[in-house]
Amino acid sequence: MATTRATPASVVALRFDGAALWAIDQTELPWRERELELRTAEDVVKAIRRLAIRGAPLIGVAGAYGVVVELSRDPSAEALDRACEILRGARPTAVNLSAAIDRVYDRASAAGDDRRAAALREARAIEAEEEAASDAIAAHGADLLATARRILTHCNTGALAAPGRGTALAVVAEKAQRGTLDNVLATESRPLLQGARLTTYELSRLNIPHELIVDSAAAGLIAGGAVDAVIVGCDRVAANGDVANKVGTYGLALAARAADIPFVVAGPTSTIDPNTPDGAHITIEERDPDEVRAAAGQLLTLAGTPCRNPAFDVTPAALVTALVTERGVICSPDAEALAAHHTIPTR
Amino acid sequence: MATTRATPASVVALRFDGAALWAIDQTELPWRERELELRTAEDVVKAIRRLAIRGAPLIGVAGAYGVVVELSRDPSAEALDRACEILRGARPTAVNLSAAIDRVYDRASAAGDDRRAAALREARAIEAEEEAASDAIAAHGADLLATARRILTHCNTGALAAPGRGTALAVVAEKAQRGTLDNVLATESRPLLQGARLTTYELSRLNIPHELIVDSAAAGLIAGGAVDAVIVGCDRVAANGDVANKVGTYGLALAARAADIPFVVAGPTSTIDPNTPDGAHITIEERDPDEVRAAAGQLLTLAGTPCRNPAFDVTPAALVTALVTERGVICSPDAEALAAHHTIPTR
Repeated sequence: MATTRATPASVVALRFDGAALWAIDQTELPWRERELELRTAEDVVKAIRRLAIRGAPLIGVAGAYGVVVELSRDPSAEALDRACEILRGARPTAVNLSAAIDRVYDRASAAGDDRRAAALREARAIEAEEEAASDAIAAHGADLLATARRILTHCNTGALAAPGRGTALAVVAEKAQRGTLDNVLATESRPLLQGARLTTYELSRLNIPHELIVDSAAAGLIAGGAVDAVIVGCDRVAANGDVANKVGTYGLALAARAADIPFVVAGPTSTIDPNTPDGAHITIEERDPDEVRAAAGQLLTLAGTPCRNPAFDVTPAALVTALVTERGVICSPDAEALAAHHTIPTR
Repeated sequence: MATTRATPASVVALRFDGAALWAIDQTELPWRERELELRTAEDVVKAIRRLAIRGAPLIGVAGAYGVVVELSRDPSAEALDRACEILRGARPTAVNLSAAIDRVYDRASAAGDDRRAAALREARAIEAEEEAASDAIAAHGADLLATARRILTHCNTGALAAPGRGTALAVVAEKAQRGTLDNVLATESRPLLQGARLTTYELSRLNIPHELIVDSAAAGLIAGGAVDAVIVGCDRVAANGDVANKVGTYGLALAARAADIPFVVAGPTSTIDPNTPDGAHITIEERDPDEVRAAAGQLLTLAGTPCRNPAFDVTPAALVTALVTERGVICSPDAEALAAHHTIPTR
């Protein structure tokens, strides 16, 4: 069903003022609401790398504007090449980023000396598409999960993760607006605590009842009957339906399957990567061990403790009850269903 | 097989000096090694409640000495009754505590005016039994997991959790000593970080190669082939083999089953509770929400954020590959096997 956005986004994560890109520094939330002024592609890369800007769809839009701000300083073809190259490498796992850069690059490089204006038109188009996608995902997901009154979600997938209201958390917000939601369990999402810091912040601003839990409490609470459905976002969906998402997602999928409740993945079709055949072909980013050694700046172990820090994991398609995109719902996603989904014209 | 303890315990968590009970304050590890002097039953209850003393078998021994220190101040029958009552209530989930208190109470109350001496003898007997159990568990577990060179473990189950070398971590230490261990993945074990603070501390002191991970990274690493076996301790084993243990254990069991690697539970037979028919009858302690809101004293979310904080979860017996006790190994534990195990005389 179509929807109007009666519920406003809880927060505006990213805005372009015609000259600079402004981004809320998500590393400082919920304690401090501060905007970063980004005036170069390098500024945008740094903000993405240190997770001041995060969430696959938001990273894509930030990357697109990153090309624009760089071309504002130096509108040459060389500057375009260089900006696109460094922005593409900012984070390896999210497909949205490279897809957005490709789109901006193609338009800008075909526009001759008009490349900045072309890049800006394309960045705005991508942003508008993502906002519309967010509303459509919210509506499709809320239809699908109409009877699930107690939702568990992971990481942050709201207005801080994607233009508009987000992805999985947009579904939650839409359900709250429709009156079909009683409670949200939000995982803290170690190591960087996007759940504890960002999801609770958004849910509070939306007046949605919620409880924060440590990540490892989810499986037992699901088994104990405290949850009707799990909904998460996605950083990349392979052609066969395998899902790369925030580390911990796979464990939630196992727990949902064991309890026989729906495990739903929400994301724009831009997250589906037909060029990645399956999960085994997805690069899992290993991040700085200091993220594990500390939480919100506080050391949790001795400074020299060796760590592993995979930022993502892969959930096999067989564990995914449904994938919700702006185009609709794919139940039991597999290669055939995903390929067909891609050929449906966007309304 | 029998074993001599060639590997010393990494640390002495608890010692009775004839007058006071001294306990390393585990809330301050790994940064500060400080002993608490406990001279009343109330002191012991407080130390257990705030997790200065933790680990099911260690709590049992601490409770037993808690009766002794109280009787040192007031050797009356009323003091015995009161001390046992408050100590039994210190933590609800671990069966070792109430079992140890029952034993001390029975001996002391039958000893007339000699009740302090009787309580002390029984406390020392319980401690010696747990130490011997630790060595036997280490040997049986290391036999069982001889070919598993990469072990994942959860929470802390070493010398800080049980007299002697511990339970699951004693198996790890024994494997290291035998040369059958390459690496340990230790989960941080939010909310109280027993893995990040205590297990890494013990593994460092034992010179055992290890890497710390966030709890939610375990499932993906197991699926990715980084782990040969999972071994955990237990707070209570029901008569049917269901296991209550540190929150997050159930999720590890699901991941191990999905990857077809062994999921092994280690603990003394004192942890098996024939009076609890199954996991549904185990009281799951819900602890202070501030434990979720903070880590190592650092706030991770806004102070008023609502939280749920179950300290344990239940792993169904069907997911347990083997239970290792001081008496041997029970493969695929069920009610019949556990009942038979209980009737084997201790060697």
